Amino acid sequence: MKAIVYHGPGHKEWESVPDPVILAPTDAIVQIDTTTICGTDLHILKGDVPAVTPGRVLGHEGVGTVVAVGSAVTSVAQGDRVIVSCISSCGRCSYCRKGMPSHCLGMGGLGWVLGHLIDGTQAEYVRTPFADTSLHKVPDALTNEQAVMVSDIFPTGFEIGVQYGDIKPGDVVAVVGVGPVGLAAVATAKLYGPSKVIAVGRSRPRIDHALAMGADVGVSTRDDGWVDAVLAETDGLGVDVVIEAVGVPGTLQDCFRIVRPGGHVANAGVHGAPVSFPMEDLWIQNLRITTGLVDATSSQMLIDLMVGGRLHPEQMVTHRFAMSEFLKAYEVFEDAPRWDALKVAVHRDDL
Amino acid sequence: MKAIVYHGPGHKEWESVPDPVILAPTDAIVQIDTTTICGTDLHILKGDVPAVTPGRVLGHEGVGTVVAVGSAVTSVAQGDRVIVSCISSCGRCSYCRKGMPSHCLGMGGLGWVLGHLIDGTQAEYVRTPFADTSLHKVPDALTNEQAVMVSDIFPTGFEIGVQYGDIKPGDVVAVVGVGPVGLAAVATAKLYGPSKVIAVGRSRPRIDHALAMGADVGVSTRDDGWVDAVLAETDGLGVDVVIEAVGVPGTLQDCFRIVRPGGHVANAGVHGAPVSFPMEDLWIQNLRITTGLVDATSSQMLIDLMVGGRLHPEQMVTHRFAMSEFLKAYEVFEDAPRWDALKVAVHRDDL
Amino acid sequence: MKAIVYHGPGHKEWESVPDPVILAPTDAIVQIDTTTICGTDLHILKGDVPAVTPGRVLGHEGVGTVVAVGSAVTSVAQGDRVIVSCISSCGRCSYCRKGMPSHCLGMGGLGWVLGHLIDGTQAEYVRTPFADTSLHKVPDALTNEQAVMVSDIFPTGFEIGVQYGDIKPGDVVAVVGVGPVGLAAVATAKLYGPSKVIAVGRSRPRIDHALAMGADVGVSTRDDGWVDAVLAETDGLGVDVVIEAVGVPGTLQDCFRIVRPGGHVANAGVHGAPVSFPMEDLWIQNLRITTGLVDATSSQMLIDLMVGGRLHPEQMVTHRFAMSEFLKAYEVFEDAPRWDALKVAVHRDDL
Amino acid sequence: MKAIVYHGPGHKEWESVPDPVILAPTDAIVQIDTTTICGTDLHILKGDVPAVTPGRVLGHEGVGTVVAVGSAVTSVAQGDRVIVSCISSCGRCSYCRKGMPSHCLGMGGLGWVLGHLIDGTQAEYVRTPFADTSLHKVPDALTNEQAVMVSDIFPTGFEIGVQYGDIKPGDVVAVVGVGPVGLAAVATAKLYGPSKVIAVGRSRPRIDHALAMGADVGVSTRDDGWVDAVLAETDGLGVDVVIEAVGVPGTLQDCFRIVRPGGHVANAGVHGAPVSFPMEDLWIQNLRITTGLVDATSSQMLIDLMVGGRLHPEQMVTHRFAMSEFLKAYEVFEDAPRWDALKVAVHRDDL
Repeated sequence: MKAIVYHGPGHKEWESVPDPVILAPTDAIVQIDTTTICGTDLHILKGDVPAVTPGRVLGHEGVGTVVAVGSAVTSVAQGDRVIVSCISSCGRCSYCRKGMPSHCLGMGGLGWVLGHLIDGTQAEYVRTPFADTSLHKVPDALTNEQAVMVSDIFPTGFEIGVQYGDIKPGDVVAVVGVGPVGLAAVATAKLYGPSKVIAVGRSRPRIDHALAMGADVGVSTRDDGWVDAVLAETDGLGVDVVIEAVGVPGTLQDCFRIVRPGGHVANAGVHGAPVSFPMEDLWIQNLRITTGLVDATSSQMLIDLMVGGRLHPEQMVTHRFAMSEFLKAYEVFEDAPRWDALKVAVHRDDL
Repeated sequence: MKAIVYHGPGHKEWESVPDPVILAPTDAIVQIDTTTICGTDLHILKGDVPAVTPGRVLGHEGVGTVVAVGSAVTSVAQGDRVIVSCISSCGRCSYCRKGMPSHCLGMGGLGWVLGHLIDGTQAEYVRTPFADTSLHKVPDALTNEQAVMVSDIFPTGFEIGVQYGDIKPGDVVAVVGVGPVGLAAVATAKLYGPSKVIAVGRSRPRIDHALAMGADVGVSTRDDGWVDAVLAETDGLGVDVVIEAVGVPGTLQDCFRIVRPGGHVANAGVHGAPVSFPMEDLWIQNLRITTGLVDATSSQMLIDLMVGGRLHPEQMVTHRFAMSEFLKAYEVFEDAPRWDALKVAVHRDDL
Repeated sequence: MKAIVYHGPGHKEWESVPDPVILAPTDAIVQIDTTTICGTDLHILKGDVPAVTPGRVLGHEGVGTVVAVGSAVTSVAQGDRVIVSCISSCGRCSYCRKGMPSHCLGMGGLGWVLGHLIDGTQAEYVRTPFADTSLHKVPDALTNEQAVMVSDIFPTGFEIGVQYGDIKPGDVVAVVGVGPVGLAAVATAKLYGPSKVIAVGRSRPRIDHALAMGADVGVSTRDDGWVDAVLAETDGLGVDVVIEAVGVPGTLQDCFRIVRPGGHVANAGVHGAPVSFPMEDLWIQNLRITTGLVDATSSQMLIDLMVGGRLHPEQMVTHRFAMSEFLKAYEVFEDAPRWDALKVAVHRDDL
Repeated sequence: MKAIVYHGPGHKEWESVPDPVILAPTDAIVQIDTTTICGTDLHILKGDVPAVTPGRVLGHEGVGTVVAVGSAVTSVAQGDRVIVSCISSCGRCSYCRKGMPSHCLGMGGLGWVLGHLIDGTQAEYVRTPFADTSLHKVPDALTNEQAVMVSDIFPTGFEIGVQYGDIKPGDVVAVVGVGPVGLAAVATAKLYGPSKVIAVGRSRPRIDHALAMGADVGVSTRDDGWVDAVLAETDGLGVDVVIEAVGVPGTLQDCFRIVRPGGHVANAGVHGAPVSFPMEDLWIQNLRITTGLVDATSSQMLIDLMVGGRLHPEQMVTHRFAMSEFLKAYEVFEDAPRWDALKVAVHRDDL
C-alpha cells in the first residue's frame, strides 16, 4: 500500500510500504476512505516529537471501512464504516476504566499511538489496536468529511476546551485561537448555554470563520485595546471561561489578562516551551487551569449531535484532495493562512 | 485601645489608637480575646502588600466577644463569643451568592479587608463589617486557641488545598510545605479518605509535626532522590493530588515533578513572583491546577468537626503570649524555625 | 390600596386593604406594575395550603418599582424597577449560604413566604423582606411581561426541572406536562445541549406550544402506544432525563415507564397525594429522583439570557388584564384549557 | 466438580455438575478458594427472581485462582489469585464506557449475570466472562475472607449507599438497616468525613456490630421516639444523608421521616414490592433519592484501602465453613439473627 512516511525532520514521502496485518486478537484493519492532517503532524515534521522515528506512517485521524478483525473483536465487523479515533483505548487499564484513555496504559501510558508510536492513518490501510474501544461506527447520515472531524478535532475542542473549561449556562466564554481546535470549541461551547462566546484571534478571515460557526463576537489581538474590548463584553470583571487553542506562551498569558476571579482557563493548545505564569497575581484569583490530551470519550455523543443537525463539522473542511495528491494537501495545510485553509480532507482516489 | 499598627515596611508598634465604632447597620464591634499572626502579616511588614498603608491596624484572625451591633444585625448579639473570619462577606453580591466571598464585591472585590484595607484584629477591639455573614458563634466546647484556627488557617488549608485539590477516597496525596497552612491541609485531607498523605518539607521537626497531625509518610526535599521517594509511595505514576503550601517558584515546580497524569495541583501558597511552568510537558498531562484566596464558607463545618473531636486545631499552637507582649509574639513568629513555632496565640491580658 | 384577598376556600376578593409599611431595616416596599397568577394560587383557593389564612393577600410573582427601602438595604433604591422573587432569602442562614434559600431559615424554614405566610404581590403594593437578596433589578431591555416570568416560572422549570435533572449534552430529555413550568423546562433544557427534547402532554394545543418553545417532538398520552412512541425516539432503552411538571400520581409513574437505567427523574410538579413507586423494578435501575421548591438562585443568569435573546419568556403570556379586572384574570386562568391560556399578565391600570 | 445448584423455589443441592470451560476468548476459569452467600441468593431461593432457572449454579461472590484464560485475556494469567466481581463488565458497551457496568449491554443489559443468568461462584470452578474487566488481582496482604468482601458487599455499601448518598465532610449520616450492606455503608461512610454516623436498626446485637464498625450512635426502631432520637443528633432539621439498606416499604418510608430538607436518600435495599411515597410532603423538600445495582467500579480502590488498613472487612465474617458443608452454611445464613451471623465464609476443603 501507499502511505505518508516520516523520514526525519523536514522529510516525508507518499510511498509504498507493506500492508498492515492483524497482530493481536483485539486488532482491526481499516481501509482508509478519508483522512486529514493535524497541526500535530506539522510538529512531528519539525522534529518536535522525538518519539516519532523515521519510517513511521503518520496520521491519527481517519474514516474508513473495516477489512479484517481479530478473534476477540465483537463490536465491529468486516464491511463496517468506522471512524478511527486518535486515541487507542484498551478499555481495561485503570485510566481507561475511569474514563481517561488519553493516558491508557495498554500501550505505554498514552492513548495517542497512531502516527506516533505505531503506523497511522495517512495511508491506504491502518492497523487499529483495541478495535472494540477505539473505532466508532459511522451512521449513514454522516459524510466522510463530517465523520473524520470526530477522530480528533471535535472531541479535543469539546473535551479539553469546553468540558475542562466547565462552561455553565449564562457564562461569557472566550476562545483564544481560531484554528480548527478553537473553532471546534466555539461550536461546542454552545452546548452549555453560554450567554456569549467571544472569538479572540489575529487574522480577520479566521475570526469570520468563528463567527460563522457560532461565536457572538470577534476580537483581534492585532487591535490595541483588545483586552478592553473583551472586558467590555463582560460585567467588567472578566470572562468566566477562557479556552486557549494556540499553544504559545503569549496566548496563554493573554488568557490570564481576560479571565475573571473565580474563572477557568482551559489550555487546549500544544506547547513546545515553558510559560511564565504571573503567580504573584494569580494566587489570589481562585482560578482553575487545566491541560490535556483528548480522551475522545465524547465521540459517540458528538456523532449523535451531528446526525441530529446540532453540530456542523463540515464547516471546517476548506480543501479537498485525492490521496495521490497527499503532498499537495500538506503544502496547503502547512501554509494554511495563505490558502485560508482550516482542515483539508484527503480522500481515497476512487471516492 | 491598644493595637499593632503598621508604620511602613519594617515598622510596627503596639500603641494606642481610637476605639472602633459602628459605621454601618451591618457592623459589629468585637472585643478580641485571642488573636494570632499570619504569614501574610509578615509579607505586609516587608512592604509586599502596598494596599496596606501606614497607620493600619494589622491582623485578620481573632476570637472575641461582641460588644455592640448595628441595627440590621440579627445573627449575633452583645455578649456572644465569636470567631472573626478573615473574609468579610456582604452576603448579597454575585460572588457571595455563588459561595465565593473571597471576591466579595461589597468592599471592592476582595473579601479580605481586615488588617488590609480596614483596621484588623491585632487589637483590643475590632469593627467587623457584615457581621451576620462574617462572624461565627463559638460553641462552649471550643477553646479560644482552637477557635482562632478557624479564622483563616483551617479553612485555607481545607478549601484551597483539600477541596480545590478534589481529593477522593483512595487517593495518594502530597502536601508540599509543612507550615500552618500545609499542616491544616494534612489534617483535613483525611476528611476525604485518602489512602496515604505524604508530607513533603525541608526541616525534619516540621515534617514530624505533619506526621503528628495525620500524615502517613514524611519526605524531606533536602534528601537526594526525594522525588523517587515520593513516587515509590504511589504505583510509580505519581500522586493523585499535590497541595502547594509554600509560595515560591521551586516548590510549585516540585509539584509538577510528582503529580500523575490526570492529577491535581492545588496551590495554596502566597506567591510574590512569576513561576515558569513547563508547559511543553504539562499540556499533555490532563492536569487541573487551582489557585485561590479562602472563601471561609467551610468555617461552620470545621467548627462542627472540631466540636466532635474529628479535628485537633490545638496541635497547631506552639507559643502563647499576652497582648501586652505582642511584639515578642512577632519576634518568635518571624523566626519560627528557630523556635520551632507554628502558630502563636496572643490572648487578652486578663484571660 | 387594593389587593386580591383570600377569604377561605373558594373565596377571594379584589378589595381595599391597608398599604404595607417597612417593618425591618432589610425590607423594601414595591409598587407592583405587573403580576400574574400561579397554579399554586389555585391550590390555595381550593384550601389545599392550610398555612394560608383568611385575610392574606395572595401572589408571589411580580415586577414593580421600589418606593421605599429599610435602612440596611443597599442593593436597590427608590425608583428601581425590580423583579420580586417568589423566594425571600435572608442571605445569612445556613440554607441561604449554601445556595438553597428554598428552605431559608430567616422566616421559618421556607423561602416562599409571599402570598403564603405574609401578604403577597397580587396587590398595588407589597412589602418584600430581605430586599437585598430577594429583588432583582430589571434591565431596560426586558418588558414587564418578560421580567415577571423570572419571579417563579422560569427559575422553577430551570432549577427543579433542568438542573436537578442534570441534563448533559447529547441527552434525550422528556418533559411530562406542558403547562407553564413544563414549558419553561422545555425552553431552558436547550441550555444543556440535549440531542432531543420530547414534550409529553395530553392536549394537542399545549403540545404545540411546547414545539413552539423548542421541543423537538410532541407525544400525547391520549394516544395508545405513547410509551413506545417515546422509546422510539431513543436507542430503545429510554430517555436520559424525565422532568415531571404536573403533580399527580399517574404522571410521575409515567416517568418511570420511559426513563432509562441510569437516568434521572426530576419532579417539578406540586403533589397533593402519596404516589406508589414500583420499587421492585426501580431498585435495580440506578435512578436519581429529585424533588424541590425553587431556590431562584438562577434568576440573574436567566435575566442575562433573556436580555441576550437566548430565552423568550414572552411566549408564555397568552392573556393580559388590568388590575381592576383581576377577578376576570382568575376566571381565565382557572379554566386555562378552555381559553388556551398559559400565563396571564395583570398590569397596573395606568400602564 | 461440585456446586450449589438451584432446583426451583425452596430447593438447592450441593451436587456434581460438569466443569466449566472457556467459551469466548475473553473468558477465564477460576478455581474458587473462598465464596459466600448473599441475601440475594435467599431471594432467588424463595422464587423471587424468575430469571434464575432450575439447574443454575448459584453465587456471585468469590475469591480464587485462575486456572485458564481465553486468547484475548491479558490482565490476568493462570495462577493469579483473583476476586470475582459480582458484576461482569464487557468494557466496551456504552454503559461500561461511562462507568456504569451495572447495566452492561454485553450480556443483555445487566452486569449481574453470575449465579443469575449463567452459572455462579458457589462451586469449585466458575467461568467468568470478560475476565480483563471483571476480575481483580488480590494483593498478598489480603486474606481470602477480606478479599471476598470486595466481590459485592463493600462496593455495594460504598457505591450505592455512600457515593450515591453524596456524603460530604461534616454531614450527619444515618444508615437504616444494619445487615452486611448497611455495615459496609457504615464503614465506608467514614471515607467522606461525616461528623456523625447513626446506625438505625432493630436488633441490639446488630446495632452493636455497627458501632464496632465505626458508627457513632445506634438507634433502635423498636424504641418509641426513635425518630426524635435521630433528630436529636442533628440540629433538629434532620440528617443530611440517609442510606436505606433493608428493602421493605417501612424502612424506606422511615428514611423520609428523618431526612432534612435538601438531604439525600440512597436506597441500597433490594425491594420486592411497591412503596408509597408521601409526595404531598416530599415535593417541596428538595430531596435527592437514588436507587441502584452496584457497578463495582470502586473495587480496586477498596482493595487499596484494605491493604492500607483503612477498612476492616474481616469484621464482617462471623462464621466459617468448608465447601463440603455448604448446605450448613446456608442454614446459618438463612437464620442469621438466631446465630448472630453477618457474612459466612465458605472455603475450599483443603484450605
